[in-house]
Amino acid sequence: MADGRLVIGTQRYSSWSLRGWLMVKLAQLNVDIDVVPLAGGGRTTVLKTLSPNGCVPYLEHEGAVVWDSLSIAEYCAEHQPALWPSERCERAIARSISAEMHSGFRGVRSALPMNLGRDSRPLAEPLAEDVLKDIARIDAIWTDARARYGANGPYLFGASFGNADAMFAPIVCRFLSYDVTGLSDVSRAYMEAVRQHPLMREWYKEAADEPAEWQLDMYESIP
Amino acid sequence: MADGRLVIGTQRYSSWSLRGWLMVKLAQLNVDIDVVPLAGGGRTTVLKTLSPNGCVPYLEHEGAVVWDSLSIAEYCAEHQPALWPSERCERAIARSISAEMHSGFRGVRSALPMNLGRDSRPLAEPLAEDVLKDIARIDAIWTDARARYGANGPYLFGASFGNADAMFAPIVCRFLSYDVTGLSDVSRAYMEAVRQHPLMREWYKEAADEPAEWQLDMYESIP
Repeated sequence: MADGRLVIGTQRYSSWSLRGWLMVKLAQLNVDIDVVPLAGGGRTTVLKTLSPNGCVPYLEHEGAVVWDSLSIAEYCAEHQPALWPSERCERAIARSISAEMHSGFRGVRSALPMNLGRDSRPLAEPLAEDVLKDIARIDAIWTDARARYGANGPYLFGASFGNADAMFAPIVCRFLSYDVTGLSDVSRAYMEAVRQHPLMREWYKEAADEPAEWQLDMYESIP
Repeated sequence: MADGRLVIGTQRYSSWSLRGWLMVKLAQLNVDIDVVPLAGGGRTTVLKTLSPNGCVPYLEHEGAVVWDSLSIAEYCAEHQPALWPSERCERAIARSISAEMHSGFRGVRSALPMNLGRDSRPLAEPLAEDVLKDIARIDAIWTDARARYGANGPYLFGASFGNADAMFAPIVCRFLSYDVTGLSDVSRAYMEAVRQHPLMREWYKEAADEPAEWQLDMYESIP
């Protein structure tokens, strides 16, 4: 008997769902996972009444109702404090880069939509300036965190894959799918570590096993 | 001798700065407040190297570096836990609506820019559909929180003005400046309570006292 449920969208495409799913799994919450096939472009009718903000991920757990990935991050950290670094200054950085991800990087998010069915193929057109600027800032965030806080392991703050890694995990997926270049060697090694994390392998596997009819032309047809 | 500094933008216009300033004041952090006059449209050169993400608010406190209002919210709550509700389900809601505000409501944010110099005057043009949708959702968030959690005081979660109120405070300013209609009586009473909070009165006073040359035509000329 589960203590609640996490509602997510199509695993092949839903970047915010991946964040919430990673956090819930890392916190080992005992919840059912309900996958809602997305119609694309915010047209998934069932979502409009399912969660308060009409979006996934959406978590119900032991009477609590939680929406938005960053709120889920804090909820999960209350159950598993190691999701944030234990040192106060590092924790402030982890939350700051997570919040920056949460409200920003719209260039990357719109130009390089997450599509786990796309395997390491650049866009036909060169990337626009706002996309390149986002990529450079993300590269700086990863490189800086790895250099300052990552000495004892492969993730942003060391040995523990935490909330900050979960927030950036879909960016790793995008950079791999679109074969984004110009990243530091440190960032490349970080991306490989994220991709090989057991939970990421599990997510990719589940995405690959999704019904073919859940695929959306709007993403598959991107050149 | 202060323990650090909070960097904010022009108080008349900078909605994110208001959020961070309220949180820091509520947590009673002993920091200097540095105001950077904004050039508008992201063209404030000095900011590009001042904070890691090139934005305000930006906090330095006892060796910690914190940017983005939602990260500042969590940092302040570590010093003053009452900034979030003490009950776990209420806390989850407070964080969820704060995160929803953080990444959303772009219709309201672009159509109704914060301008404390504008006193209760509707836009010349009718509000677009996405703006009306945002307003309806914000009205529902406020009305619902007040009804469920606000019995013992005038704020979203009762007697204590907390992080969720700080996140929505600039929305109150906008709705007042543009005389937004169609809100519930509960929301109207909530807006009045926020406007009359001592810290809000202090912020409005400081905004009114800013040098006239900090005013920007791009905001003043909105019809």
